[in-house]
Amino acid sequence: MALGIAMLTLAAAAATATAGGGTRPALMPWPSSIEMGSGELAVGPGFRIALAGNGGPLVERAAKRFEARLARQTGLVLPSPVAMAEKPTLEIRCDSPGKPLPYLGMDEGYTLSVTPAGATLQAAQPWGILRGMETFLQLVGTGSSTAFRVPAVVVKDRPRFPWRGLMLDSSRHFMPLETVKRTLDGMAAVKLNVFHWHLTDDQGFRVESRRYPELHRTGSDGFFYTQEQVKEVVAYAGDRGIRVYPEFDIPGHTTSWFVSHPELASMPGPYRIEREWGIMDPALDPSKEEVYRFLDGFLGEMAALFPDPFLHIGGDEVNGKHWDASERLVAFKKEKGFKDNHDLLGYFSQRVSKIVTGHGKRMMGWDEILHPSLPKDSVVHSWRGQESLGAAAKQGYQGILSNGYYIDLVWSADRHYGIDPWDKGVDQLPEADRARILGGEATMWSEFTTPEVVDSRIWPRTAAIAERLWSPREIKDQDDMYARLDETSRWLEWIGLDHRAGYTRMLERLAGRQHHDLRMLVDVVEPLEDYQRGATGHYTQQTPHNRLMDAARPESDTARGFARLVDALLADPSRRAGREAVRARLREWQGLDVQLRPLLERSAILREAVPLAAEASALAAAGLEALGFLEQGVPAPQSWWEQRSPLLQREKKPLTGLEVAYRPSIKRLMEAAVGR
Amino acid sequence: MALGIAMLTLAAAAATATAGGGTRPALMPWPSSIEMGSGELAVGPGFRIALAGNGGPLVERAAKRFEARLARQTGLVLPSPVAMAEKPTLEIRCDSPGKPLPYLGMDEGYTLSVTPAGATLQAAQPWGILRGMETFLQLVGTGSSTAFRVPAVVVKDRPRFPWRGLMLDSSRHFMPLETVKRTLDGMAAVKLNVFHWHLTDDQGFRVESRRYPELHRTGSDGFFYTQEQVKEVVAYAGDRGIRVYPEFDIPGHTTSWFVSHPELASMPGPYRIEREWGIMDPALDPSKEEVYRFLDGFLGEMAALFPDPFLHIGGDEVNGKHWDASERLVAFKKEKGFKDNHDLLGYFSQRVSKIVTGHGKRMMGWDEILHPSLPKDSVVHSWRGQESLGAAAKQGYQGILSNGYYIDLVWSADRHYGIDPWDKGVDQLPEADRARILGGEATMWSEFTTPEVVDSRIWPRTAAIAERLWSPREIKDQDDMYARLDETSRWLEWIGLDHRAGYTRMLERLAGRQHHDLRMLVDVVEPLEDYQRGATGHYTQQTPHNRLMDAARPESDTARGFARLVDALLADPSRRAGREAVRARLREWQGLDVQLRPLLERSAILREAVPLAAEASALAAAGLEALGFLEQGVPAPQSWWEQRSPLLQREKKPLTGLEVAYRPSIKRLMEAAVGR
Repeated sequence: MALGIAMLTLAAAAATATAGGGTRPALMPWPSSIEMGSGELAVGPGFRIALAGNGGPLVERAAKRFEARLARQTGLVLPSPVAMAEKPTLEIRCDSPGKPLPYLGMDEGYTLSVTPAGATLQAAQPWGILRGMETFLQLVGTGSSTAFRVPAVVVKDRPRFPWRGLMLDSSRHFMPLETVKRTLDGMAAVKLNVFHWHLTDDQGFRVESRRYPELHRTGSDGFFYTQEQVKEVVAYAGDRGIRVYPEFDIPGHTTSWFVSHPELASMPGPYRIEREWGIMDPALDPSKEEVYRFLDGFLGEMAALFPDPFLHIGGDEVNGKHWDASERLVAFKKEKGFKDNHDLLGYFSQRVSKIVTGHGKRMMGWDEILHPSLPKDSVVHSWRGQESLGAAAKQGYQGILSNGYYIDLVWSADRHYGIDPWDKGVDQLPEADRARILGGEATMWSEFTTPEVVDSRIWPRTAAIAERLWSPREIKDQDDMYARLDETSRWLEWIGLDHRAGYTRMLERLAGRQHHDLRMLVDVVEPLEDYQRGATGHYTQQTPHNRLMDAARPESDTARGFARLVDALLADPSRRAGREAVRARLREWQGLDVQLRPLLERSAILREAVPLAAEASALAAAGLEALGFLEQGVPAPQSWWEQRSPLLQREKKPLTGLEVAYRPSIKRLMEAAVGR
Repeated sequence: MALGIAMLTLAAAAATATAGGGTRPALMPWPSSIEMGSGELAVGPGFRIALAGNGGPLVERAAKRFEARLARQTGLVLPSPVAMAEKPTLEIRCDSPGKPLPYLGMDEGYTLSVTPAGATLQAAQPWGILRGMETFLQLVGTGSSTAFRVPAVVVKDRPRFPWRGLMLDSSRHFMPLETVKRTLDGMAAVKLNVFHWHLTDDQGFRVESRRYPELHRTGSDGFFYTQEQVKEVVAYAGDRGIRVYPEFDIPGHTTSWFVSHPELASMPGPYRIEREWGIMDPALDPSKEEVYRFLDGFLGEMAALFPDPFLHIGGDEVNGKHWDASERLVAFKKEKGFKDNHDLLGYFSQRVSKIVTGHGKRMMGWDEILHPSLPKDSVVHSWRGQESLGAAAKQGYQGILSNGYYIDLVWSADRHYGIDPWDKGVDQLPEADRARILGGEATMWSEFTTPEVVDSRIWPRTAAIAERLWSPREIKDQDDMYARLDETSRWLEWIGLDHRAGYTRMLERLAGRQHHDLRMLVDVVEPLEDYQRGATGHYTQQTPHNRLMDAARPESDTARGFARLVDALLADPSRRAGREAVRARLREWQGLDVQLRPLLERSAILREAVPLAAEASALAAAGLEALGFLEQGVPAPQSWWEQRSPLLQREKKPLTGLEVAYRPSIKRLMEAAVGR
């Protein structure tokens, strides 16, 4: 690990020196050890792979995909898919074919050695080969047309955590098969290894049940995955070293089940698919034996469909209203001696656990399932945080962390990046307890995420979380992370992800054409974080996702770059460095209001942004004034501060759901101007 | 048709008034009749389709795709795929399910009627419904977030020609299945109805033969379509109203066949897959009976695989060298009394024609097959031009035009658009002869086209050719075409085509990051037309396609826009209008050399563009000087002209294969300045 850090520093330095030159390895996740050599390997039309060792068909398929991706990424034409080349550019040596599907604890380690004469990728198992291939592809930089280049390097790499996942909520908004596959491609590219598929919720039942076909027929609006498609996804993911396990959220989050099966609910119904967002009242009735018979049937069918040994039963957010309102359940609790609904949930979880175990699976659930009666082989999935996870670990439960990795909250990448599963005292736990914390999962809840915007909500930020879970804990320099994330974001486009191209498309739809100034505005705004969006209007499952707030990226690279300029300006005692760069940007932004107003006022869909553009311009104007005071070297008068500082407060519930992302930088400039 | 023209004028006027406002229907191809109403239909989350009449499963599948595309294009969330809605937004009424697959002469007419209260799409056959759906989708413009809008309109539409095709060369560079499907989606969007699949050539044998598997095994580098994939493509295209027919180019263009079957060749071999471009010597030996037995076997297998009644046997570009060199063939020609190789080809075509006919197909071939012995039910595919086609028609042959529609020549859209199958005297032919000219095909030969760049080579220019073949002949205003093409180009991105996003990706690969000035340069250059590229270097099948010339679009919209500015400037007697706009552009371009030089010189792949950037800057500087003279109102001195005019000649073989596209505009400015 020491080596890893040393090289990171070197890489960061090189990044500054060669920005755009493409020789610095922009690896993400950063490997556990990397040693740069001298020289580079040419990758041109003569590129050949040789397979050695005994990697089996999984490695063979991976090599074919690898070559196609290399061709796509470089523009090379590589005519022979994979050959036992005599003089290979890349020799892939896998010791053993291993198991046909990925599993928890599989060996993902690999060694990649590149010299100007050739490269070797070695691993004990195909999983390591897959990870090393991604590393190789990330290393390929543009050289000449016929000689792309890979720097000479030795990478010895293995993950820190064995469970590095992404949860995709396909229930609240259905995500088509292509979206799922594209997401899996992206996951594999950043070495994630678990796809947690949230398949049922109040707003949609998204998997075909052959045993109870009325579930998906009445609960999905026709948007569900067939069992063939599920198998296709499992195979597709497996080929990429990604486990797939499903979540069927019970006993709450079950409204869509009750459209066809009101008899399983705590209250009589009738029910229809839920269109609103929030924590709903409907829940399974834990007192009914037929509920367990039904779950045995359904979960048994699903247990056979999904080969992974884990099965997630949710268990979260039962608000208890229907349980309290049911006379039957009140009596049941009394009869059983349960003191509250938590006990009732514990009873339910225990019963379900037996069903899940009976079908050969290990049960997972959110924090709420933690109860003294929870069997010890259950796995706790924590949305609450490291303390909760640590407490469970001390009680002997394995667990994974999602608190801090909720990518639907549109936080900045560095905020997620700064959160470690070992924070908040977990690193003080005895090794045996701490080892029960298996890793984490980014969670892509989809209240505000449709297939059109999901790529920009997952990528590139999830790459930062992937690094947190793969790389040594000490790798945490945020500027370096962002430098690599920027390159990774572009690189992910070669995989077919749409987070950059989709942005352009959506902006052109909004403006009716390419519009430089609209892009300039949206480049410097960010959607409100957390669940503040919900406060800006009434959103349901049918609300269109075509507004500026949907086009805007979770994080403004431009505003972050501007903040760095302001840093430099304020750090320099003479305050000259970069002043003109800051001024140039502010002048552009100052003009936004005037330049955009005709477009915004003419357009029904953009009109809401009139105040946003005005605010962006006013902030830039205030920043320019601050810059003027700084330049003159006299403190700004207090009256100026009093007049301008209200600008620093954003509206509580902006209609657009957007915030000017350079506001904090303006604040710093203004504070410096008044000498604070 | 008179109505169509009247409305076109109106539309063009509206385009000027509402540029970017999105209410003008940017239909492409322009319908045969369109009448604008007043008001508009709202398309929001409550959008519903109802299927009436008897369209059958093809229309049902189309309606599902339609709704998914509408959702994608608008950002709406449309929860119910297709329902027999009580209050539909769009009623689709198809009289009859027709035949399961599209066919030559199918009825593609439809009537689309939109009022503020709802829309009706009516057609006799599913083919018309498919075309009308595309029209509806093109009409959908951005309104508010929840109310996209379709203008009230009545469109009565039918195609001018029954054969409107695109040929894709999957042989010289293999095109993956996804590329083929995406291309079919684009074709359907602009109402093309024939996919001509060029599957074999010297450089690759791209279809699985079960009867002669060594053909694809040894002739394809492993890149071929399985028969299952062919069936998938036929079904996919059929669902979109597109016929699919294959071309197996014989007796020349057959090197890849001879890798496994040298015994079929005119010279002994051995052969390997051809990697070079050009007209090659190898050809089948027309004197050998085993050649016809083999063709009977192979073409029989293919005739069964492709349901369309047409089968293309190429027949072009036999250079005769191997035929002349073969003693056997010299003797054969003498024995048969053939006076030259054209007679030998005629004999071959006649024999093959019997085989093709024997398998229930009609034979197609390029002009070369035209010979007195050619059976009258053959169809001539003309790369030579309308005269050739007209001559064939007079002899009783049906034919289609591709001369003028070679999109691989990277001409401008208006140049293709200006070419009509009835030009060059065809419109003077008797109606019966003229009716034999069935339409045309754009041809995408792939010497310089890989899967990465193929979208930008086909789109959006092919939409202009599609309009030529669909719309009334009188629709030919180029400015109006370009205005609509621009919107169509953006609209095609919603279908998943990559011609715009891929450009950005390639530029970022070249620069290693987003680079404003590089984009500014590439925005104003165009690849050399025709086959001039071949003269700029040595190109083979393995030459990478990752250079500036591959990223550059066939046509510079920016340079065309600039030419319009120069038009306006020179047309105004006072010469003031737009002068500042011209100056602003020229100033930006003048700076390209200085701004780009550091990037270009540092990069092995971009270095070749140093002279190009210098040339672009020098031209802009000369344009600025010309502008200065024009502004002063004094003619520029002759010495200035003599000094600057060499700039107006471009290098004969520029290394970059690129040309500064605003050079002609600079020429006009300079000529005006010296008073020419």
